[in-house]
Parts: sequence; C-alpha cells; structure tokens
Amino acid sequence: MVSGGARAVARCDELGVAPYSDAPDMLFRAYLTPAFAAAQRAIAGWMIEAGMTTRIDAAANLVGRYEGLEPDAPPLIIGSHIDSVRDAGRYDGPLGVMLGIEAVAALHAAGRRMRFPIEIYAFGDEEGSRFATAMLTSRAVAGTLEPGMLDIADARGISLDEALAPFELSDLKFAEARHPGALAYLEAHIEQGPALEALGLPVGVVTGIAAQLRYIVTVTGVAGHAGTSAMTLRSDALAAAAEMVLAIERIAREDASDLVATVGRMEVAPGAPNVVPGKVVFTIDIRSGDQARRDRAAAAILTALRGIAAHRGTGFTSEQTNDLAASPCDPRLMDLLEAALVAQGVAPHRLVSGAGHDAMILAALCPTAMLFIRCAGGISHNPAEHADPADAEIALRVMLGFIERLDAL
Amino acid sequence: MVSGGARAVARCDELGVAPYSDAPDMLFRAYLTPAFAAAQRAIAGWMIEAGMTTRIDAAANLVGRYEGLEPDAPPLIIGSHIDSVRDAGRYDGPLGVMLGIEAVAALHAAGRRMRFPIEIYAFGDEEGSRFATAMLTSRAVAGTLEPGMLDIADARGISLDEALAPFELSDLKFAEARHPGALAYLEAHIEQGPALEALGLPVGVVTGIAAQLRYIVTVTGVAGHAGTSAMTLRSDALAAAAEMVLAIERIAREDASDLVATVGRMEVAPGAPNVVPGKVVFTIDIRSGDQARRDRAAAAILTALRGIAAHRGTGFTSEQTNDLAASPCDPRLMDLLEAALVAQGVAPHRLVSGAGHDAMILAALCPTAMLFIRCAGGISHNPAEHADPADAEIALRVMLGFIERLDAL
Repeated sequence: MVSGGARAVARCDELGVAPYSDAPDMLFRAYLTPAFAAAQRAIAGWMIEAGMTTRIDAAANLVGRYEGLEPDAPPLIIGSHIDSVRDAGRYDGPLGVMLGIEAVAALHAAGRRMRFPIEIYAFGDEEGSRFATAMLTSRAVAGTLEPGMLDIADARGISLDEALAPFELSDLKFAEARHPGALAYLEAHIEQGPALEALGLPVGVVTGIAAQLRYIVTVTGVAGHAGTSAMTLRSDALAAAAEMVLAIERIAREDASDLVATVGRMEVAPGAPNVVPGKVVFTIDIRSGDQARRDRAAAAILTALRGIAAHRGTGFTSEQTNDLAASPCDPRLMDLLEAALVAQGVAPHRLVSGAGHDAMILAALCPTAMLFIRCAGGISHNPAEHADPADAEIALRVMLGFIERLDAL
Repeated sequence: MVSGGARAVARCDELGVAPYSDAPDMLFRAYLTPAFAAAQRAIAGWMIEAGMTTRIDAAANLVGRYEGLEPDAPPLIIGSHIDSVRDAGRYDGPLGVMLGIEAVAALHAAGRRMRFPIEIYAFGDEEGSRFATAMLTSRAVAGTLEPGMLDIADARGISLDEALAPFELSDLKFAEARHPGALAYLEAHIEQGPALEALGLPVGVVTGIAAQLRYIVTVTGVAGHAGTSAMTLRSDALAAAAEMVLAIERIAREDASDLVATVGRMEVAPGAPNVVPGKVVFTIDIRSGDQARRDRAAAAILTALRGIAAHRGTGFTSEQTNDLAASPCDPRLMDLLEAALVAQGVAPHRLVSGAGHDAMILAALCPTAMLFIRCAGGISHNPAEHADPADAEIALRVMLGFIERLDAL
C-alpha cells in the first residue's frame, strides 16, 4: 500500500497536467479558471473519500470539514493554496492541501476524532498570478480585505466579479468567506529555498515570515553622446547604479544571516547603445526574519548609495514602497510542531520563511504554525520543482503528531 | 532681417516640438513615423522656398536639388539627418540640413549657380533609434547596404518593409536610393563634445571619424525567489553585469586617451522586484580615433568580462554587432574648408569626431568634408543641447566659401 505522503505527492503530480492546467505545455492554474474548477472537483472528491463534507465558500475557496467530538468547538484549519504561477512547479501550494487531506484520511481510517473539528482549506488565490492582488482569498477568510481590493480585473479586462460568476458567486458577497473563529492554523509548504537540503533535513519548523522592505531608487546623471563624451567628463547614471548594485550585494553578504537584498528590476534611460545613460530606476527588496536586522541593513544600504551618488556627482532619490512587518508563528504551536518532529527522529531546526504565505494572513484570525518540507535544489516557481515522497511522508507524520498534541492540550 | 544662420537654428527649434516629435513631452523623431513625415513636409517647403526641386528617394530620404550650369555634372551633396534619439536635442542632424538649405537660399537670392548641381540630403535613419541598424539610409545612398541589413523590425515588431508602406516605398526597392556619383559630400554638424568650446572657437575642420566597435552581451544567471534565495547561493545576472559595467568604465578611463566605452542599453529579466535576475542583456560601444587602440581596449574589456563571468559562475556570450573603421575626411577638401574658415577670421583647428556621421558612410561614394559647430557644454543627445545662432551664421559663411572654392577648382 502506498504511503499517505507518497499519495499526496502523486496527487500533486496528477494536478500538474490537463485538465488541471490552463496551458497545454506547462502548469499554469490561475484563480477561477476552468483548470482551477476542475482541480477543485478532483480535490473535493478526495476530501469526501477522506471522510469530509465539502463546500465552496464565498471567496471560491474549497473547504473540507471533518467533525470533532465537540461540534461547536473552533476548528483547526489546515490549508494552503491551489493556484499557481505561470510555468509552475507542482508542489508549491497543492502539497500542503494534499497532506491536510491525508492527515484527515489517516484519522478517519483509524476511527479517530479530535475534540475540535478539522477544516482543510484549498485557498484560491495566493500567487496573485491572475489579479494584481495576491492572497485575496486568505484575506477574505481572515477578515482583512481592504476597501477597493476587490475592484480588480485580469490582463484581459475580466473583473473579479465576472470571474466569480461561473462559480455562482459575486464580489458583493466575497467578504462573507470570513471565518467565525479558529483554534489554530497549520500550513505545510515546500521550503522554496536550499536551507533544509543543505542541512540534510526533510522538514523544519518555520519561526515566521520575514519582514520585508521595498524601495524604488532613481539615479540621475547626464545623458550624453557615447562617442563624444570624454570618460573624465561623464556623469553616467548606469555606472553609478552598477556601483550601487554591488554595494547592496556586499552589505547583504556581509550580514551573513538570513538577510537577503535584491535588485530585481532596473530600467536604463534613454536606453540607446550610443547614449551615456542619464537616468536609472531600480528596486531594492530587503528581507530578514529579524525586523531590526532588516532595518539596520536598509539604513546601511541607503547610506552607501548616497555616498556613491555624492562621490560620482549623480542625483539620488529613494522611495519606500513596501514595509511588511515580520509575521511570527505562534511560539506554543512551534513547540508542539517541533515536539512532533523530534518524535519522528528528525533533528529540530527552525528557519524563517523569506517568501510570503497564506499563514501570514491567517495570523490575523488565529495562532499559526508552518512546517517547511525540503525541496530539491531550493528550486521553486519553476517546473523543475521537486519534493521527495519520503519527505512528504515524514511531514504527514509530523502533522498528525501535531494534531494529537493540540488535542491533548 | 534675420541671418541665415539664425534662421537655420530657429527652424531646428520649430522642428523640436509637435507635430514634429512623436512624443508629447520631449523630442523623439524616429525614422518613418508620423512626426518624421511631418518634418519632411515642412523641410520640403523650405527647400522649395530656397529655389530647389524636391523628391523622396527609395530609402525615404528627402532630397532637394539646385541645378548647376552643367546639369549633368556630378553634384555636391550637402547633408545630415533628421531622425533623432529619444529625448533628443534639436540640433544634432537638423542643423546641418538647415544650413545646407540656407546655403542654397543665399546662392538663389544672389542669382548664383555653380558649375555643379547641389543636392541637399535630409537622411532618414542615422541614429538607429527605431531599427537596430544605424545609418541605413546613407548606406543606401552610398551603395554599401549588406545582405540581411533590411530584414529588421522595430521594438513593436513592425518590419522595415511595413514601416515604408505609408511612404509608398518597399524594402525591395530600398537599394535604388543609391546615388549615381557625386563630386563631394559636405556635412555641418554640432561637435557633440567640449573641444571647440574649450578653445573658444565657433567652428572646426573634422579630420575623420573615430573607429567604433559595438557588442551585445548576454549574462545568464539563475532566476530565483528574492525572499528564499540565500545570498551565498545566488547566481545573480544583474550583480555580475554591474561588475562588468564598472570594469568597462575602469578600462576606458585607464586608457586616458580619446578612447571611450559606453554601456548605453541594459535589459534585466524577468524584471520583477521579488525575483533575482536570471538574465541581463547589455550593449558596449567602444570608440577611438586610433583603430589599434580601440581594438586593444575591446580585447581587454572582453577578457575582463569573461573573467567576471567565470568568477561568478554566470553564463556569458558577446556578439559583435558593429565594426566601423576610422573614416578619414578628404585632405584636399579639408584644405578648402579650412581656407574658407580662415577667410571668416576663425583660427584654424582640426579635430577628430568621436561620433559616427553619415559622412563616414558617404566616404564610399565620394570625397567627404565635415565642419563641426561649437555646442554649449559639449552636451548632445539631451534636450539641453544648444547651438548659438552666431556660430551657425559663421558655419553658413564657411560653407558658402567652401562651395565657391570648390567651384573655382
């Protein structure tokens, strides 16, 4: 008999191709598309098989429910997302949903019920790969939607309301997906990074989601003719920006912690081969699990950049466009998860999540815990994404241990 | 009455705004656009006013012709270009065309005809700001088009042939713009550099055009999630490219001659703030009046870039897209131009052109001469570009003196 972990991985693989992808030659399953609806139908079937009742909530999340001994007790929510980026891997999101179903299936097979009900949420929109706003559906569940957030359309001009219509839903009632109150939220997710693999560990306890700062920087030099502007008389915005990119990399490397800093977007103007660049605009993204460390690095980076601009005589402005606080997981739940992990013979390791997850949204609703699963090479958002069935099986056993321990509190 | 030089400058100013620019808030007039066609119509009117007949040739160059006493004699061509870079100055190109028209207007007003006809060419594509290949239209006139050179498309995917259609032209007949044979080519152009201003001279005689090499470089790293890719494990294509930009600048500075090297265009992919760049493409433009010096610098740059790529473990390819030999002006014509200049009371000064010009292409057709006009601060390819009407008037008189001397040979 195949293990629950292996079956969870196999079901992710099954969901990786038509009719569960909207693209013929790669995995792309965006919120509210035909492939999305097909995936919901398949997953609902597996939920029913595992002993659950199912429903689609007002935000088009698929929810499976396994009753507890105390039917009115606030439930443990186990969830992740089933939408994907374009040309995605198969495990980012679905693996957490499939493992939740396997956990319930195992309890159901053993005739076990907890005091609390268990609800498995297959969130609809985490990636934001169709509409501009990500994590829309966990926001609805957590009750943290903001005004105007639903007034969005996809690249083809289809509004959220129009996209909801085939599901017999409407943006007017979207906020009714808000959850009445939960005991806890547990999410299993591939790490999307190389740390567990480097340590030789199948799973790890997430301490929280990194604090993030984002800036837009503008460097202004003087555009000039590439053939006639003597090297000594130039004010080259790109040369200045290049020095800045290296300073950002150096400061982040010197920190030698979980801190990361990235220049991901850069535009060079006027952008002709025969013109010395007069203006460069670029983004900086700085993250760390430790908010103070992040802020110190940001200050060091901005100081270095101002120094480079002053030295080169270029203009420099920076604008902060994002400031996301660190979202720590619940210390008590982390201890429960770690105890369950140690009981499976895994060396305990705690790590911060550089990426955002539905868990950081659900933290507004209830205490949260996250379990990271090793993924090959740390590769994600890429068809080469890979999770090992044996690791998934360990994750499943840790989740079951966590549920037992939560029930025993 | 306004002087011819001042009128030439004023007409450049007139051509600097709508409807002669394709952008509402800056000057951008690319080859074969609506603004380009509008400029041709205005300039053709001025040519007719100056006593010329006009036509559009097979490469969409506007040509005005002022007959000579010997109608079948090979003509003196006076020309420059009317296309511009993005966010351009108003004098780079158009001033040479306007001064040519003023020279003919002065002869016409005086009832003077030379033995030879005079043709004023307003070249269509010198900057290469729409299609990748620059100086396409002077190449057509000089008969130096190469196979495949017309098989090009702009950034929106519009082919040269499609862009020619509104002008009732086709790439199939483009080469028919080839000139049957000319006596000489004269081009007046702003210096686009600071030498004449530093010497306090309004105009100078150009000895030749610097040798130029151009490359497209592709740096390939590994795209990754900005939040989960640890600094030590990244292969960031932009950080590698930044190091390369600084190496190029350093090598060009160390040369401490007329050598210049420029990274003018850079594209970063995928170009999202939360993704570590996986690929960067940039251009390198290297120029010197001394071809061997240029080639030594290019070799040093490519060696340095390969070293950076190897050190960082990124992919690296470079493709040479341009190799323009140094193009000397004709010694006899230089002497005529200098004699005309001295007759205007200007101290003689000869200088090399770092920028390429249509003159270097026309050298394949006939002997060439170029007159540089002082421009404020050496600034060009920039809206701050400025030419003094008094300098333009001196340039006009030098050109008329050159024409007289050529006629007297």
